[in-house]
Amino acid sequence: MSVPKPLVVEPLTQAAFAPFGEVMDELGAELRMINEGTTERYHALAHVDTSGQHGKPIISLFRANRRPLPILVRMLERHPLGSQAFYPLSNRDWLVVVGLGEARPASDSLRCFRATGTQGVNYARNAWHHPVLVLAPIQDFLVVDREGPGNNLEEYWFDHPADQRVLSI
Amino acid sequence: MSVPKPLVVEPLTQAAFAPFGEVMDELGAELRMINEGTTERYHALAHVDTSGQHGKPIISLFRANRRPLPILVRMLERHPLGSQAFYPLSNRDWLVVVGLGEARPASDSLRCFRATGTQGVNYARNAWHHPVLVLAPIQDFLVVDREGPGNNLEEYWFDHPADQRVLSI
Repeated sequence: MSVPKPLVVEPLTQAAFAPFGEVMDELGAELRMINEGTTERYHALAHVDTSGQHGKPIISLFRANRRPLPILVRMLERHPLGSQAFYPLSNRDWLVVVGLGEARPASDSLRCFRATGTQGVNYARNAWHHPVLVLAPIQDFLVVDREGPGNNLEEYWFDHPADQRVLSI
Repeated sequence: MSVPKPLVVEPLTQAAFAPFGEVMDELGAELRMINEGTTERYHALAHVDTSGQHGKPIISLFRANRRPLPILVRMLERHPLGSQAFYPLSNRDWLVVVGLGEARPASDSLRCFRATGTQGVNYARNAWHHPVLVLAPIQDFLVVDREGPGNNLEEYWFDHPADQRVLSI
């Protein structure tokens, strides 16, 4: 009988996440001292890409509730017209699930990263990713994405259990 | 002898801040339920305006250190080519000082707002504002502003003590 396979949880690093977008992390960022030396600016952790088809960048707040465990990954989504950045507003680890593929994500390409509470991610335009997954009961995120004309959401559902994945947390 | 006058600290509200930009606050925001009902999206708290003169929006992290009290407001700055959004990453009150004026800010127009730890602001393009002021010893902010060609920073210094202001906190 075919059942969902487990998906290993990896640490989130810039190198590992490069195929999917940017990790927003002060580690490795360019540091500029500003405001008469009172402020450290960790510059350009992420680059917002929302201008296609007359899109405009907007800032929203997401309040994510934890899903019941074990978490079953049955779908991924992507935004063909813009990047989407998430940065946590409380210092708790959270999960980032992504996949590779053109017309659809390949189930064997799925990866799960454990982000710390001081790491954000900026999904690249067209990068397959799971909706936000939190480990705390509730966690807020600042989100920078796109508003504008056109269809900016595609979902792909894994109908076959063999293509689904269970997070081993 | 002319000395700096005190500047009263007011609560931060959308209405009071309207001449200077947007308040990012879930209160009054459009709420959308997404991700199979697991996530509340407080939609479009702020609109990023960085596209003039081939600018691109970027996301940075600012680590602000508290200035010695009393805080003397001696200058304001503005960004003629783009908006600049600040959202706090720890739940502590912070201060927002702004002013009105075309070529220079009028000292009698200065206002100081006390933002909560769950309120951000998005300074409008060309809105005069003071560099970030925190009440905690140290506070991080996610900042969405502009990268690109052109001069996007103007500073105005109040040389005369009568034009300067002391924050009464």
